[in-house]
Amino acid sequence: MTTKILSMQLIKKLSLIKKILSSLRSKGRSIGFVPTMGYLHDGHLSLCRQSVKDNDITVMSVFVNSKQFAPDEDFKKYPRDIRRDLSLARKCGVDFVFYPDNDEVYTKDHLTYVEVESLSKILCGRTRPGHFKGVATIVLKLLNIIQPDIFYLGQKDYQQYVVINKMIKDLNLPVRLKLMPIVRETSGLAMSSRNSYLSKENREKASIIYRALQKARILVKLNEFKPTEMKDFIVDTVAKKMQVEYVEILDLSSLQPVNKITGRVLIAVAARIAGVRLIDNVII
Amino acid sequence: MTTKILSMQLIKKLSLIKKILSSLRSKGRSIGFVPTMGYLHDGHLSLCRQSVKDNDITVMSVFVNSKQFAPDEDFKKYPRDIRRDLSLARKCGVDFVFYPDNDEVYTKDHLTYVEVESLSKILCGRTRPGHFKGVATIVLKLLNIIQPDIFYLGQKDYQQYVVINKMIKDLNLPVRLKLMPIVRETSGLAMSSRNSYLSKENREKASIIYRALQKARILVKLNEFKPTEMKDFIVDTVAKKMQVEYVEILDLSSLQPVNKITGRVLIAVAARIAGVRLIDNVII
Repeated sequence: MTTKILSMQLIKKLSLIKKILSSLRSKGRSIGFVPTMGYLHDGHLSLCRQSVKDNDITVMSVFVNSKQFAPDEDFKKYPRDIRRDLSLARKCGVDFVFYPDNDEVYTKDHLTYVEVESLSKILCGRTRPGHFKGVATIVLKLLNIIQPDIFYLGQKDYQQYVVINKMIKDLNLPVRLKLMPIVRETSGLAMSSRNSYLSKENREKASIIYRALQKARILVKLNEFKPTEMKDFIVDTVAKKMQVEYVEILDLSSLQPVNKITGRVLIAVAARIAGVRLIDNVII
Repeated sequence: MTTKILSMQLIKKLSLIKKILSSLRSKGRSIGFVPTMGYLHDGHLSLCRQSVKDNDITVMSVFVNSKQFAPDEDFKKYPRDIRRDLSLARKCGVDFVFYPDNDEVYTKDHLTYVEVESLSKILCGRTRPGHFKGVATIVLKLLNIIQPDIFYLGQKDYQQYVVINKMIKDLNLPVRLKLMPIVRETSGLAMSSRNSYLSKENREKASIIYRALQKARILVKLNEFKPTEMKDFIVDTVAKKMQVEYVEILDLSSLQPVNKITGRVLIAVAARIAGVRLIDNVII
């Protein structure tokens, strides 16, 4: 552990991270990768810990990706604190933090985008046009730079996971993707860098999403509910404290609405409080 | 040479080619790759020969990519002759011919596409909407499957080269791309699988494109011509025998029209004869 603490390296240059990892790869070291936008919380750190467990080397990237924010979104005010991030990453045993400047990632004449059609247009893609195109493009770029054996995503952004997983299959990317469970605050609120936008009171109120999802989980076990009834119940519950954007009960891989709650389904919620957009989900 | 002849393998399964190449890669063998749509001519074979020279292992793919043809184009009648292709590839020293079925490359629910914006919309992209999106997507997929050190493209499809080269840079793909010179028939006509559509007479007539480009090259050396004058001269010459689709004088990497013929420029031509669309170019 001490060696790890001493040896964590912050790397800003693309050419340098490629050179270092290429050398480690040629020595047969396995590489795990955790892409983040920084302002780390326990969700990110659980990904890092899993990667440290699974691989010889763990790389975490910290890059607030402008291309996944719409012009009216919170790119500029997105919370950033690299010193705190470095300290947290070091404690988890991360070996390299890749923290590139924007110009290092996107040249001025950047023209190439990858898009997972249909899957990118529904749910969060409907209110955030271009978001998943930006996400898929940066993830593909980072995978090409880092060339990890395994990389890690959190379940909170479940649609992101489905989009990226589909991209991996459709583009034959030579990498494994591990989905890690949602980590929650004591109140049940899913951890998110955006929670920092909330007052203490609203942070408490926002836990209504989790409480609604938990009740839904119990209701499903007790009785056979129609998806429409279940949706109405969750919408009504969350709406007491927040503005609901969507509640959907979906097939796990196609993200298409189900007609009947049988087998495993995803219940996904997006809602706003004090202008802050939060998402959460459970797999039942 | 004899060993090569005996050992060339035809591989149809994606999982098998990946397994074989992964094993060769782990033994430190360098891999060269030539993507083709088959019906090989000396242009393709010059790429194979260069790859055999440069690398330990040469993989050639033969795959007529449906996604780069518009519905009204010649996907169905595109010439195919795998036995002839195999015989020619063997003679060049190719080690593996990857010849997958369509279902092996594209699953029924394929959703992911890569696009190099702007560069895909001009020149051939204007009359062939979706063409370069299809090309970029299949090339990216094949690069992920084969993971070559170097791959080879011919200069005849110069716009394709620029699009793919931009994709490599923008997506940080860990591969080198070598552009190989155009190979021509005795008449000067650029080799193309589509030349097989032409009667002997029209094949002769179609060499007008090359003759016009050669004259243009000489004229540029003799005197300072304006691009518009030069374009008019080529259009007039080619139009005697063919229907001109475009003649453009362009910057080599942006493919934007130049105002003055100085330094190195590309003169690119697309024209039809008896319904067959041919392209050619020179770098001056």
